[in-house]
Amino acid sequence: MERYLDIDPWKVVETGFHPDRQRSSESIFSIGNGRFGQRANHEEAYSGDHLRGSYVGGVYYPDKTKVGWWKNGYPEYFAKVLNAPDWTSIRVRVNGEELDLAKQAPRHFRRTLDMHIGLLTRSFEVDIAGCILSVKAQRFCSMADVETAHVRYAIDVLSGEANLEMEAELNGDVQNEDANWEERFWELFDKDGDAEGGYLLVKTRKTGFQVGHAFRATCTVDGQPVEAHASPLDMGHALTFACSASAGASVLIDKQVGLVRDFDHAPDTLIAVAQQKAADAEASGWNAARQDHAMAWAAIWEGADIVIEGDDAAQQAIRFNVFHLNQTYTGDDPRLNVGPKGFTGEKYGGASYWDTEAYCLPFFLGTHPASVSRQLLVYRRNHLERAIENAEKLGFSGGAALYPMVTMNGEECHNEWEITFEEIHRNGAMVYAIHNYIRQSGDAAYMAEGGWEVVLGVARFWAQRVNWSEAKQAWVMLGVTGPNEYENNVNNNWYTNRLAAWCLQYAGEALDWMKAYASVALAEQNARWSFDESDERAHWESVSNGMFYPALEGTRVFLQQDGFMDKEQRMADDLDDAERPINQHWSWDRILRSVFIKQADTLQGFYFFEDEFDDATHRENFEFYEPRTVHESSLSPCVHVVLAAKLGMEEKAVEMYLRTARLDLDDYNREAYQGLHITSMAGTWMSVVEGFGGYRVVDGVPHFKPMLPSVWKSYRFNLHFRGRQLQVAVTPEGCDVSLTSGDPLDIVVDGEPRRLG
Amino acid sequence: MERYLDIDPWKVVETGFHPDRQRSSESIFSIGNGRFGQRANHEEAYSGDHLRGSYVGGVYYPDKTKVGWWKNGYPEYFAKVLNAPDWTSIRVRVNGEELDLAKQAPRHFRRTLDMHIGLLTRSFEVDIAGCILSVKAQRFCSMADVETAHVRYAIDVLSGEANLEMEAELNGDVQNEDANWEERFWELFDKDGDAEGGYLLVKTRKTGFQVGHAFRATCTVDGQPVEAHASPLDMGHALTFACSASAGASVLIDKQVGLVRDFDHAPDTLIAVAQQKAADAEASGWNAARQDHAMAWAAIWEGADIVIEGDDAAQQAIRFNVFHLNQTYTGDDPRLNVGPKGFTGEKYGGASYWDTEAYCLPFFLGTHPASVSRQLLVYRRNHLERAIENAEKLGFSGGAALYPMVTMNGEECHNEWEITFEEIHRNGAMVYAIHNYIRQSGDAAYMAEGGWEVVLGVARFWAQRVNWSEAKQAWVMLGVTGPNEYENNVNNNWYTNRLAAWCLQYAGEALDWMKAYASVALAEQNARWSFDESDERAHWESVSNGMFYPALEGTRVFLQQDGFMDKEQRMADDLDDAERPINQHWSWDRILRSVFIKQADTLQGFYFFEDEFDDATHRENFEFYEPRTVHESSLSPCVHVVLAAKLGMEEKAVEMYLRTARLDLDDYNREAYQGLHITSMAGTWMSVVEGFGGYRVVDGVPHFKPMLPSVWKSYRFNLHFRGRQLQVAVTPEGCDVSLTSGDPLDIVVDGEPRRLG
Repeated sequence: MERYLDIDPWKVVETGFHPDRQRSSESIFSIGNGRFGQRANHEEAYSGDHLRGSYVGGVYYPDKTKVGWWKNGYPEYFAKVLNAPDWTSIRVRVNGEELDLAKQAPRHFRRTLDMHIGLLTRSFEVDIAGCILSVKAQRFCSMADVETAHVRYAIDVLSGEANLEMEAELNGDVQNEDANWEERFWELFDKDGDAEGGYLLVKTRKTGFQVGHAFRATCTVDGQPVEAHASPLDMGHALTFACSASAGASVLIDKQVGLVRDFDHAPDTLIAVAQQKAADAEASGWNAARQDHAMAWAAIWEGADIVIEGDDAAQQAIRFNVFHLNQTYTGDDPRLNVGPKGFTGEKYGGASYWDTEAYCLPFFLGTHPASVSRQLLVYRRNHLERAIENAEKLGFSGGAALYPMVTMNGEECHNEWEITFEEIHRNGAMVYAIHNYIRQSGDAAYMAEGGWEVVLGVARFWAQRVNWSEAKQAWVMLGVTGPNEYENNVNNNWYTNRLAAWCLQYAGEALDWMKAYASVALAEQNARWSFDESDERAHWESVSNGMFYPALEGTRVFLQQDGFMDKEQRMADDLDDAERPINQHWSWDRILRSVFIKQADTLQGFYFFEDEFDDATHRENFEFYEPRTVHESSLSPCVHVVLAAKLGMEEKAVEMYLRTARLDLDDYNREAYQGLHITSMAGTWMSVVEGFGGYRVVDGVPHFKPMLPSVWKSYRFNLHFRGRQLQVAVTPEGCDVSLTSGDPLDIVVDGEPRRLG
Repeated sequence: MERYLDIDPWKVVETGFHPDRQRSSESIFSIGNGRFGQRANHEEAYSGDHLRGSYVGGVYYPDKTKVGWWKNGYPEYFAKVLNAPDWTSIRVRVNGEELDLAKQAPRHFRRTLDMHIGLLTRSFEVDIAGCILSVKAQRFCSMADVETAHVRYAIDVLSGEANLEMEAELNGDVQNEDANWEERFWELFDKDGDAEGGYLLVKTRKTGFQVGHAFRATCTVDGQPVEAHASPLDMGHALTFACSASAGASVLIDKQVGLVRDFDHAPDTLIAVAQQKAADAEASGWNAARQDHAMAWAAIWEGADIVIEGDDAAQQAIRFNVFHLNQTYTGDDPRLNVGPKGFTGEKYGGASYWDTEAYCLPFFLGTHPASVSRQLLVYRRNHLERAIENAEKLGFSGGAALYPMVTMNGEECHNEWEITFEEIHRNGAMVYAIHNYIRQSGDAAYMAEGGWEVVLGVARFWAQRVNWSEAKQAWVMLGVTGPNEYENNVNNNWYTNRLAAWCLQYAGEALDWMKAYASVALAEQNARWSFDESDERAHWESVSNGMFYPALEGTRVFLQQDGFMDKEQRMADDLDDAERPINQHWSWDRILRSVFIKQADTLQGFYFFEDEFDDATHRENFEFYEPRTVHESSLSPCVHVVLAAKLGMEEKAVEMYLRTARLDLDDYNREAYQGLHITSMAGTWMSVVEGFGGYRVVDGVPHFKPMLPSVWKSYRFNLHFRGRQLQVAVTPEGCDVSLTSGDPLDIVVDGEPRRLG
């Protein structure tokens, strides 16, 4: 860790230019609006090391899989998030010399991400071609009208005589850095332009997604318009502005962008709609549009802000996490999901993982109306047919569904046998998310509107995936990888076994609910999936009740998997610092053989099913596993915060919180250059609200059991619950919960009932 | 299986052209001489599906590894056998039309591999450009002078007037089909030629191996010389012959090739030596050279022939296997080894696997003087330093050596974690081979001349690879893959544990032998490897004596690994034919979870350590494992033949023999197109000699316990033993062992001592 950004409660600030951290900064300062977004690339040219990246939600390309040794069952394609046409560029030439901060070192460089209003600002002073310029570039992807974006680029000539040539571009000539075979992913469909702006319609190869872009731009010198010239590009269009500006002159370029997808508009209207969007944006102008955008952000913060007093670094961090989650997903489209890197990089594809169900869902449930989280469930329901195909490829039948490890459209993308075929606990997370959603939102009706079908498909999978062990006289699950990916192909992973058994039990409960409350839908859905209770339910119950769970004799400890105690029992504290993270210093076989745990595995089960275990069991397992855990997944510490806080282990909870909250801001693992850890940001929110705040929903009633870490003066968080907006304030004096809006509500704080409103 | 080749005791014959099997035929009819070799490509052009391939022993290219998901410890390169310059081509144009059997369908096509004399012949009749030609092409890679080869191409004009243009080529413009990144592996260094012949000096990229080629060619029509014209090629040289030939005319081209490596000659002499070789070959002429070549083969057959009476298919098969093994490896160069595909294809690289030690060594010990097998040991001794580096990459230290899974020069090439890092039993095979070599050859001195150093390095590896299990109160070995690659990352694989314990015990014995008989060498070697007995030996003994072995309670069955009995216990016979081979029909995770065994694993240990187990234990384990074995490795059936024969299970032994002997000839798995299963051919020899013949060497005395399968009338095999040549004949009347050459010898047949000579 090496902090290079300034601390500020509402802003992320880079003071002074850090070309060696440029890729990281481009990730950290990324902006987006749930529909599209992009890395914080410079508007003008930049020839130093960087990664130019613009991304459009839901648009992907199936890149032909790269594999050393093919295994039966591998998918042929990996759906990649696409580097999309670049609408941010404004090239600048001064007396014939191109502005490029890799060539002209800037002074007073400052990059600011104002999280309160969602605005990226970059300012600097530079000597170029005999002139001194002061430049200020600002942009935002509108949250108020998610099909528009605005760029404002201001140049003040401080000294010298500048012959300026500026080119505002819309350019489809882009490539993915992570393309397996150096293919181009886009093809040009149509483009044109004039001296007011231009448009570009592109289509992805293979998948055929169409995205229409249009832009308009104007330029003034000291308020006087500069004439624009149309400059067609090979794959786009640019407007060129040329002017002379002497010391004291102010040049201003305003650029407005419309960006529309064939998801939302008829393909043959895309050009017209994009042009209209750009024109509307131009008509409203920078100030009004920025105002609307800021209002949209204000509403988001009303639902999701967390205030931490007494620790500005923690304050900045939690807002940074909440900010990026909201930039990534807005919940208005069930075809979108929360990619692990959001709109901040190419790594992992922009696909969805079980992170969404296990980590992101609680965040969206707690900060937005239930409709937002529901979209995440609908996304998976819409992939059910593909999940069944996926299971069939692996040899399952009868409607068994295996949700993919990584996906864009429901098809599996990943191809590492120990993950793709074996990290099947993900399938249980789909069902747990349905349970969690209904528990928190109260929207039981969802069971009849997609829930049951998913529960059924997953239950059928587990029912086939186990086998009866004569030796153990129990159902066993062989050959799995648990959440702890530092173990592969193990038998009887406790978490997976427990989750599978729970899913089968929940399937029975869900079926009973459907029979009682949604018999018509049930009959229709059972016919669709050829389900007859009398054929399958008894087996579900047998497996659920007869599952094998490895345990450490003479203790309350559940064993992560069969044979876990054969390992050399070392503690993470015994490791040399020079060996950590072990995933960078140890060979893979050494990691596999070691006892060390990448992320919560057995403890993930304690997080999901905490009510099943008494505190002593809870504590004994925590004290057994945590010291063996190296937390080399960004998803690990948050679960430990929640559990440690529940057990009253303040020191451990705070230690773990610090590991999760500023992971990207302080670039702990030196990997922010690849993009941000978007999904683990939800874990940071969980850490505060479920961990320190002790928030749970029990029988429809919000419960709080708050802890105030001694390093903080106080904290408060906004919380959405079933149409109401709450604010929970935790101070040394106690916990105050107030109802900001909505109907009166019963809650429980520290075991005491309270009535709000 | 679909037999398309004719049965003949000494020949492989393809009658009628099978373009759909062309790639398979090119593999099956391959010729070589241990130094170089090539697939049975047509001399003239062929535009149908085929794989042109010439290979030079020991010459490889490190192709950049292709991998989907990188794991720490993976090597960066995979050493590939190289498709080398093509010296076989003789293009033919008739009245301007190119002869190409994909375009002019041949009549009376016949391709013959005469295994007795090592000669490839192809003849056919064809209508082309108004003429009918009869063509006969013959070639061989000389076993008498392994730096030369000969091609004879004869055309009889049966009707029509043929204006013939013939081009005898030496062409370096070749590529590997399996290149990961479509790179070229060779660069041209020098070339030239005149009207008598030409030369080509090429160098491999990165590795810098230099290979010099030269050729000469002459042409006659009805015995009258045809004038030659020099035709330079971009990467080679050709001679062009043009003539008119009427019906009844006979055209003959003789081509002689010299092929020399910088392994054997100074680089700056390669061109001259290659030219001299070609000139010498031309001087001796086709008939004399062929005679010398046939004599060399006669000597090989004297050592290695097996005669089976009453079953021509079995007879042909065993000779086919013996023939190819001898073409692949002659034991005159410790830099060479027995690649799994020999000179017959690109697949797997031409690298060496543990197949060499486990399967090929017994063959070469039984059919050649010990010096040949010794080279295979020296090969590994020479790679010891690299094996230590390989272990260091994985985190081992102190001189621990891990021999690679796949290699050319000692560096690991493979990159599949479950194999590369985990299939470590290979390391034990290195030591077992030393033991086996000394036991059979009596050359105990080898221990002091390289043996001990390898034994030490491997022992150090095992000593670190185990860990103490408090739970089991025993040494355990976690995270391995046994010979049965249908299980990955298992704990306590019985075979690996047993082999490791044996290696540690053998290391102690070897050390005692060195102290007693080679103390000077020992002192020098121990100093080199920083070995002090008092630091390490006690731990070896502790591990060797305290190793954990999984077993099935209440039986004599050793369990293949921990948890094996948790699997659903199915038998291979229960599988539908449509599901087999399961590696083509099942997903990888289903294979892993199933009980089915790819190849002998526990039973491989019974093969290695048969004296440790009584017959009842032997039988119980065989009867437990064989029915669970699907034999989807070509290396599986042979071990089962030996064990079944020992147990007197004739029917099973014969069934297994049939699966191994004609694997490639009948193209059982439809994969001969990739090249032949060279190393498993040694298993076929083992099946006959160790299996049916019951050959063992016990305390320096050859023992035989023969069985005559009822499907055969009789069989006899030649055998080399410590400088003597034996012939063992098994007939219904009994077993006759005679001494063909060498000193008198005591042997034991069916438990009865006999004296030979």
